Amino acid sequence: MSTQKPKRIGILTAGGDCPGLNAAIRGVGKTAMVDYGMEVIGFTAGFSGLIEKDYVDLKESHLSGILTLGGTILGTSREKPYKVVKEGENDKPELIKQNYQELGLDALVCIGGNGTMKTACRLQEEGLNVVGIPKTIDNDVWGTDVTFGFDSAVQIATEAIDRLHTTANSHQRVMIIEVMGHHAGWIALYAGMAGGGDIILIPEVPYNIRSVCKKIEQRYQSNKPYSIVVVAEGIDHPKKVSAAAHVGEAISTYTGIETRETVLGYVQRGGSPSPMDRILATHYGSFAAQCIAEGNFGSMVAMRANQLTTVPLAEVGGKLSLVEPDNSLILKARKMGVSFGDEYDLM
Amino acid sequence: MSTQKPKRIGILTAGGDCPGLNAAIRGVGKTAMVDYGMEVIGFTAGFSGLIEKDYVDLKESHLSGILTLGGTILGTSREKPYKVVKEGENDKPELIKQNYQELGLDALVCIGGNGTMKTACRLQEEGLNVVGIPKTIDNDVWGTDVTFGFDSAVQIATEAIDRLHTTANSHQRVMIIEVMGHHAGWIALYAGMAGGGDIILIPEVPYNIRSVCKKIEQRYQSNKPYSIVVVAEGIDHPKKVSAAAHVGEAISTYTGIETRETVLGYVQRGGSPSPMDRILATHYGSFAAQCIAEGNFGSMVAMRANQLTTVPLAEVGGKLSLVEPDNSLILKARKMGVSFGDEYDLM
Amino acid sequence: MSTQKPKRIGILTAGGDCPGLNAAIRGVGKTAMVDYGMEVIGFTAGFSGLIEKDYVDLKESHLSGILTLGGTILGTSREKPYKVVKEGENDKPELIKQNYQELGLDALVCIGGNGTMKTACRLQEEGLNVVGIPKTIDNDVWGTDVTFGFDSAVQIATEAIDRLHTTANSHQRVMIIEVMGHHAGWIALYAGMAGGGDIILIPEVPYNIRSVCKKIEQRYQSNKPYSIVVVAEGIDHPKKVSAAAHVGEAISTYTGIETRETVLGYVQRGGSPSPMDRILATHYGSFAAQCIAEGNFGSMVAMRANQLTTVPLAEVGGKLSLVEPDNSLILKARKMGVSFGDEYDLM
Amino acid sequence: MSTQKPKRIGILTAGGDCPGLNAAIRGVGKTAMVDYGMEVIGFTAGFSGLIEKDYVDLKESHLSGILTLGGTILGTSREKPYKVVKEGENDKPELIKQNYQELGLDALVCIGGNGTMKTACRLQEEGLNVVGIPKTIDNDVWGTDVTFGFDSAVQIATEAIDRLHTTANSHQRVMIIEVMGHHAGWIALYAGMAGGGDIILIPEVPYNIRSVCKKIEQRYQSNKPYSIVVVAEGIDHPKKVSAAAHVGEAISTYTGIETRETVLGYVQRGGSPSPMDRILATHYGSFAAQCIAEGNFGSMVAMRANQLTTVPLAEVGGKLSLVEPDNSLILKARKMGVSFGDEYDLM
Repeated sequence: MSTQKPKRIGILTAGGDCPGLNAAIRGVGKTAMVDYGMEVIGFTAGFSGLIEKDYVDLKESHLSGILTLGGTILGTSREKPYKVVKEGENDKPELIKQNYQELGLDALVCIGGNGTMKTACRLQEEGLNVVGIPKTIDNDVWGTDVTFGFDSAVQIATEAIDRLHTTANSHQRVMIIEVMGHHAGWIALYAGMAGGGDIILIPEVPYNIRSVCKKIEQRYQSNKPYSIVVVAEGIDHPKKVSAAAHVGEAISTYTGIETRETVLGYVQRGGSPSPMDRILATHYGSFAAQCIAEGNFGSMVAMRANQLTTVPLAEVGGKLSLVEPDNSLILKARKMGVSFGDEYDLM
Repeated sequence: MSTQKPKRIGILTAGGDCPGLNAAIRGVGKTAMVDYGMEVIGFTAGFSGLIEKDYVDLKESHLSGILTLGGTILGTSREKPYKVVKEGENDKPELIKQNYQELGLDALVCIGGNGTMKTACRLQEEGLNVVGIPKTIDNDVWGTDVTFGFDSAVQIATEAIDRLHTTANSHQRVMIIEVMGHHAGWIALYAGMAGGGDIILIPEVPYNIRSVCKKIEQRYQSNKPYSIVVVAEGIDHPKKVSAAAHVGEAISTYTGIETRETVLGYVQRGGSPSPMDRILATHYGSFAAQCIAEGNFGSMVAMRANQLTTVPLAEVGGKLSLVEPDNSLILKARKMGVSFGDEYDLM
Repeated sequence: MSTQKPKRIGILTAGGDCPGLNAAIRGVGKTAMVDYGMEVIGFTAGFSGLIEKDYVDLKESHLSGILTLGGTILGTSREKPYKVVKEGENDKPELIKQNYQELGLDALVCIGGNGTMKTACRLQEEGLNVVGIPKTIDNDVWGTDVTFGFDSAVQIATEAIDRLHTTANSHQRVMIIEVMGHHAGWIALYAGMAGGGDIILIPEVPYNIRSVCKKIEQRYQSNKPYSIVVVAEGIDHPKKVSAAAHVGEAISTYTGIETRETVLGYVQRGGSPSPMDRILATHYGSFAAQCIAEGNFGSMVAMRANQLTTVPLAEVGGKLSLVEPDNSLILKARKMGVSFGDEYDLM
Repeated sequence: MSTQKPKRIGILTAGGDCPGLNAAIRGVGKTAMVDYGMEVIGFTAGFSGLIEKDYVDLKESHLSGILTLGGTILGTSREKPYKVVKEGENDKPELIKQNYQELGLDALVCIGGNGTMKTACRLQEEGLNVVGIPKTIDNDVWGTDVTFGFDSAVQIATEAIDRLHTTANSHQRVMIIEVMGHHAGWIALYAGMAGGGDIILIPEVPYNIRSVCKKIEQRYQSNKPYSIVVVAEGIDHPKKVSAAAHVGEAISTYTGIETRETVLGYVQRGGSPSPMDRILATHYGSFAAQCIAEGNFGSMVAMRANQLTTVPLAEVGGKLSLVEPDNSLILKARKMGVSFGDEYDLM
């Protein structure tokens, strides 16, 4: 670690699109420029830009007006520099180190999800000064209570559930809505609760289709002939069909009640970030610049128990932040009569 | 036609859910009660309620606070009373006439789409006094320039396109979004233009996939490596897959560019109506009550050239209001470089 | 009028901010560039840019991504070049003609409201080739049924009324909300009807405060102890206070019921345009470029009875499009029990 | 404290309207009914209902569909039962105790802000079993990190700032927006940061108008001729005018730059709660019912460091949760160049 003050830093956004990326870039950039007088360059298309030395010199004017914009002004990609395609043939990490030095960088900010943090950690081990900023709509980055993008995704998913309610009610149908979340059920749990879902299925709580159907039939018999079922895309289901289609078909087969499925898809990733995501991303971005100024490298910025803090990148990699089955919101939901599709087994 | 003033009227909502149904019910009800002193009963679940004599006596309190609510407080169904299941066995029209008389109704308001107007017309022919109110998010009811539900659906679809833009841009992908419209491309055309779509495919303009791909490649070569393709669900495509999946696969096969598909689905039908849909539905509803008071039966209320008017139900049935290929907005869109997937053929 | 094809055109936005300005600029620019191969320059800050020869060469890249943005990328101002400050000293029109020629312009597009159309007309008379595009949230430009900006303003105002409803209801208060509209009550009428206002006061229908209070008291006695009053800023009231404050104080004085006032203000002018405003502005912009190509100068593009058309600028100036007291929506509203504050007089 | 299980509980909402009240009522009610088999009655209009024995027996049907509704189905009021109007004449607390017993209540849930928690505490001291649920858009209830209503208010205020940006930019003006917050600057700080405000003035950080003007002039000289100033209503200003008007006039006087003011007002309190507010209110409500079941009385439910917990009501009363001047977000904001109006003094 150099004893000199960092003068010139790089920044990149990697992995899937996520509301708040531009707010984070702005937070890093403004703090670095205004408060610390650093130069900032932005690599285009994630790690690809770092490998191919494709970048722009960021000025304050680049950062003006981007707080509210979805997407990332730098572009992003799924490029994973440590993925070995043919044995012995990967020189991408070498290229990265070389470019980092040739560009005279003192530090690098990597904004991304779990995979990005893993790459960031390895680059730190190779001798670069790296700070990570966690982002993902899935909220499953280990080491932080919350990632930006999540609040926006929950809002979009909740609005969709709100809309389905009126149709479910008017037509007396079972509406199944599939939201994002391959491994973690955060979006399904939060949007499900905010949208008044009757049944919420998440990867962390294995469901039994008989439990699901029983709940729907109970509602039917209690004069509630419609139900809203919120499912995470990552719940157990055959690969050939969507999770929503699988659950919907099972319900209509077993109960005979008409079902309709919606797969919300990519709209959950895009668009202007929610106010709270803008704030969180700004907070993270500004703090990342401060970490660089203070020589706190090899770290990921994080929010834990409402406190801004850092976590060693080495601790983050390969782990996921999942919904615990005894999550407080799940326990409360159960008390209110929400089903997680496992009650039949529990009894 | 009776020479007495109508004293007691019925109202029902039939067909698919649509934002503005409650606003229309409120418009009919408030005008009938406040201005004309009529009694109003609401049949539940569309024509089913009329067949089964399932209804509620509507009071002003039922109409309070429903202007902003999606769905329909009366419920709806796909029941088509004139559909003969077994030959000679359909007594539903007879039941309807009987219930209409037993309930002492002087008139009936039917709120629905094309199918509903057809049924409304036949009930009028059977001797009932019927007024129709056109609704459908698809905007394809013949005889009126616009139906309520359309503006709301365009808003929801446009918001979705806005969101996809950021992901398309950040990842440099082709995003395909499928919106509703079995026969008519109104939603695709309007949301496509409002959302800045690059290619818009509608049922009324047969597309050629080579044209679509050529446009995408031209954009790619002009340094615009991403495109937004908006397709109506009713465009020509194999039944096994969605329209979006069909177009997406063809594009990625022919151009080699990464594509992502979104099928927006039922969220387009539900939720709180847009302000303009609330106004249109209120306007229609109030005018329908006035038509009854004035003995203008066998009519559908309509908006033509910005004037509220009526059209004989007998003229409406069996026809659809489709997008003309020389629609002014299409012509302007072409001038601005928007593709409708048929330019290759045109050249 | 030149017999040659227009090659180079200018464009400016003048008067108050309005959602859709950028969509209109994009419509003009894309059509002019893509379809007609024209060069387009954009003057900054309305007529000031034309006077001071302050402009930018617009490229397609300037027009990319601006469809959804509020405001105007060209800036705007209240500069009125024909306003004579000191007698005999105004050389602004002369400067404009000179700059128009020096810049080699074949035509000029002026996007603005009533005042801008007046200026546009005089510039046409001076020998410039001018096409006007009407914009204003107030919807009061004469010669067209609708201006872009209006739909967005109605949405914002309606959302605000929706929010006030819950507070009015929970606290049993009279809430007064003031919306824009100096001369015309279009926003108040439309947002008032979309938001379920109980009393709507507009400049075109003189109100009597006793009528207003009587309506509120009638509601109170009918077990509706809260009311929503929507007022246009331009209704008769003392200049020292806002229209809302004036009406609110009168109500609380005469009825003794608690009132709360909200003056919505500038939020009605800004932000992303609604889908329908984007479409209308695009439609107008593209058509304006077409008018230039076809030599149709001295005209304002307009929408009349749902048809895109042009109106001579000479006919537009000095007139306003106001709400007629026998407007169909007003008549229906009265039938539904909405008060316009003049019923006491009418009786 | 009784050793028997609570069987019958009361609930009321007091103080100002706030998004999420219905979600909290639903959370209490559903948990109490579904999980604990309790009877629940709802008092109308806050403590007034408790004093006047005005209440409804809540059934599950009352709780259906209210999750998304703003306001409170129970009504609210500013009634403070312990406020002594004439010495020795207040028998309201006595009436409350009497009604509580006559109605056979085992516990009472009070949903409200600081004042309500104080009253709740005194009722607990009088022998009632009370659980408090904190609500306020101002986020200033002591003892919890966050109250429901705050997230919704921040969203509404941020949307307004987003809209003002385009007008500020297009007209090159200084826009001042006043948001709620008599004592606490939480809304101003969060909405100001989410909306990209240039200057944020809150009650907790005394401002100097020279500092404010200096910042605006610096921006002007750096080619940013417009600024957004976000002020909390509670900042130091003469009572005769609004905080926004005071700051706006000072800026235009000292800098000569054109200013425009917006006082957002009551729209911040109403309308459908944000998803996160619905979840927080549901979480609190359900937990309050659980507290009752577990005999945890005299407590306010709270969220601290992301954990659901309780705080003794006796600790809560008379204190406020204010923004600390060294709040992490403020420190980061300063680093990014945001002014809090005190830099001139600091230097």
